[in-house]
Amino acid sequence: MDIIDIKTYMQSIGREARSASRLVARAETASKNQALAIMAMAIQRDEQELLVANAKDVENAKTRGLDTALIDRLTLTSKGIAGMAEGLLQIAALADPIGEISDLSFRPAGIQVGKMRVPLGVVGIIYEARPNVTADAAGLCLKAGNAAILRGGSEAIHSNQAIAACVKEGLKAAGLPETAIQVIETTDRAAVGELITMKEFVDVIVPRGGKGLIERISDEARIPVIKHLHGICHVYIDEGADLDKAIRIADNAKTQRYGTCNTMETLLVHEAIAREVLPPLCKIYLDKGVELRGDAPSRAIIAQMNEAVEEDWHTEYLAPILSVRVVSGLDQAIEHIAVYGSQHTDSIITEDYSRARRFLREVDSSSVMVNASTRFADGFEYGLGAEIGISTDKIHARGPVGLEGLTSQKFIVLGDGHIRQ
Amino acid sequence: MDIIDIKTYMQSIGREARSASRLVARAETASKNQALAIMAMAIQRDEQELLVANAKDVENAKTRGLDTALIDRLTLTSKGIAGMAEGLLQIAALADPIGEISDLSFRPAGIQVGKMRVPLGVVGIIYEARPNVTADAAGLCLKAGNAAILRGGSEAIHSNQAIAACVKEGLKAAGLPETAIQVIETTDRAAVGELITMKEFVDVIVPRGGKGLIERISDEARIPVIKHLHGICHVYIDEGADLDKAIRIADNAKTQRYGTCNTMETLLVHEAIAREVLPPLCKIYLDKGVELRGDAPSRAIIAQMNEAVEEDWHTEYLAPILSVRVVSGLDQAIEHIAVYGSQHTDSIITEDYSRARRFLREVDSSSVMVNASTRFADGFEYGLGAEIGISTDKIHARGPVGLEGLTSQKFIVLGDGHIRQ
Repeated sequence: MDIIDIKTYMQSIGREARSASRLVARAETASKNQALAIMAMAIQRDEQELLVANAKDVENAKTRGLDTALIDRLTLTSKGIAGMAEGLLQIAALADPIGEISDLSFRPAGIQVGKMRVPLGVVGIIYEARPNVTADAAGLCLKAGNAAILRGGSEAIHSNQAIAACVKEGLKAAGLPETAIQVIETTDRAAVGELITMKEFVDVIVPRGGKGLIERISDEARIPVIKHLHGICHVYIDEGADLDKAIRIADNAKTQRYGTCNTMETLLVHEAIAREVLPPLCKIYLDKGVELRGDAPSRAIIAQMNEAVEEDWHTEYLAPILSVRVVSGLDQAIEHIAVYGSQHTDSIITEDYSRARRFLREVDSSSVMVNASTRFADGFEYGLGAEIGISTDKIHARGPVGLEGLTSQKFIVLGDGHIRQ
Repeated sequence: MDIIDIKTYMQSIGREARSASRLVARAETASKNQALAIMAMAIQRDEQELLVANAKDVENAKTRGLDTALIDRLTLTSKGIAGMAEGLLQIAALADPIGEISDLSFRPAGIQVGKMRVPLGVVGIIYEARPNVTADAAGLCLKAGNAAILRGGSEAIHSNQAIAACVKEGLKAAGLPETAIQVIETTDRAAVGELITMKEFVDVIVPRGGKGLIERISDEARIPVIKHLHGICHVYIDEGADLDKAIRIADNAKTQRYGTCNTMETLLVHEAIAREVLPPLCKIYLDKGVELRGDAPSRAIIAQMNEAVEEDWHTEYLAPILSVRVVSGLDQAIEHIAVYGSQHTDSIITEDYSRARRFLREVDSSSVMVNASTRFADGFEYGLGAEIGISTDKIHARGPVGLEGLTSQKFIVLGDGHIRQ
């Protein structure tokens, strides 16, 4: 398709999505749940077809010489397919947030004013590699009453289309418009440029993928984007902290999984407790093969530490590497987080009431914790029942984003002939 | 200042604002209220100085040949100055939303997860003419724990600087940083371009002024903007509506004030009730000098109606002009609003339970009403105690925006050494 065709194609996709969104917005909970259940059934039933389609994508990816990590994320297994189906059933089991009316109160003028929760409208999902996003994200958007436009990676085109067929089957069976969930069929990059700028048809963009993708989308989008760019998370071990808690948490926050956005990347330690806590803690890190990069005071305590340079405080390693800094106290810890953090997730380990309160209040991140691992920053752990992604922005959604992040609230007013004086 | 200087100047303003915002974020309620009270006192005390500064601006505006409506909005009076002071005292009397913790609940993993309300950080206010915005907007930002950067119109430069001096006096007296509220001193337009794109220092932009200003800001901003562009509001008189309520509301929604964004611009009437309601209602409009523009069916009922053309359904008149359309029922009314509305405020006049419920659910506007005048869409009427502006966007803030719109919620997690399995 040439550029003019792509614009026309995308405008048509957008128009269909906007039109379908009005029907999905008023759909009964039972219809949406039925669609999700049929999707799950179809995905499980068509396991062989999905695996065949996926094999084609993997074959092509290998031929194109794409890197192993990407091929890894691209590959569907029986287990992954079962997971997709199970995920859709879990979404169906969630409470439906749409239509809920809250705070409906009488005002002095005599009118009743409240809020009603409604879908955002049309969600654009832009993702790479992982075919399961086709089902997961579409399911969440639908449950929250939205229409969705899906733009997967070109490397997963066959897998995504096969999953999309199951999705359409679910919509149709439930009497919902098939255009409620549309998959963009052209791999031309111009389609993405259209998707993130067609404000009249799309209400929010959700990019799922690597930093390159998210940066590009954020820079060029004229539509709000739910995203986090960096996960430079901190654990600060305060003076007087319980050593067991500190070691357990600092270990878990770094090593439970290295490649997640809520993994600790920098450890801050109060100088008064450094000599007690660093040796046992760093032994655990070194035994697990974590490379340590520390400032002079920490290197004076732990010999097997490399020198940390300025850039290390700014770095999200997503690997078994950890920056370590000894600080003079809470003020310096908070300052460090403010300067080097990415407003994602930060945790203090302390037994001091006042310092715990200060940390909670003063650290400007989407999740702020006391005596808990940063790895808890997750939609399921928080009880949202779902997770579209994690937002480090302060507007609209902040932190792990569940169904509510795909909705908004409008004001409703009930009167009895009331007029303004 | 040349362009390089402006960028440097604005970066410095931004840096100061970001730094001040961290102090304001943790300021005690009493300090913020004290600052507001001193500001109010200083404004009242310096009435003469403010009037003299304002007279200089008005003189220059007349010399420059600016239009009378603008000079009108530019002019400060004793009453307006008293209003500014009173407004600040009212803001001081509002409950402080900052630091409030809600929904702190235990999760299966044993952690307590909740939300804490916090300031957005730094708010950029861009406004034209009305000098009172300097005090009003700065007061709201401060109460909600933010720092503010104010960019007023060049036509009001002396007035704004005089008011800003009172503002600074209040900050200083309360022990808050004077850079918590900064007024941009250069009238160069490049400063605005910097303000709306310096994402690292500014969290949200609030434009206050005419459509030209708001459109320009919205198009070029790389920072979220709280705004509404158009107020094309509807009243739909349904079949079986109570005639008294319908006439009273439709009159008030149009004629109580013509130039506000929540003024009705298009009246929709069910064909079954048109012959009953249009004659008495239109007599009221015509007696008040409202020009009526209607479709063929309405013109068949009311002779003194001009012909409505397609563009009239899209038009926000902000004047004594009203578009009138006869519709076949609720479906057509909802369709009309979806196509021609601006998602601002729409009201149905009905006695039918089911149609009222459908209208509330299906109309995708920031305020949806039953048997109440659209003129109620206002932060004070809704009980917000304040109004930054009205948003027709669906992200973050929707409808009249009060203090809460200048805040966000971060997650807080309280543990006791908990780690993720």
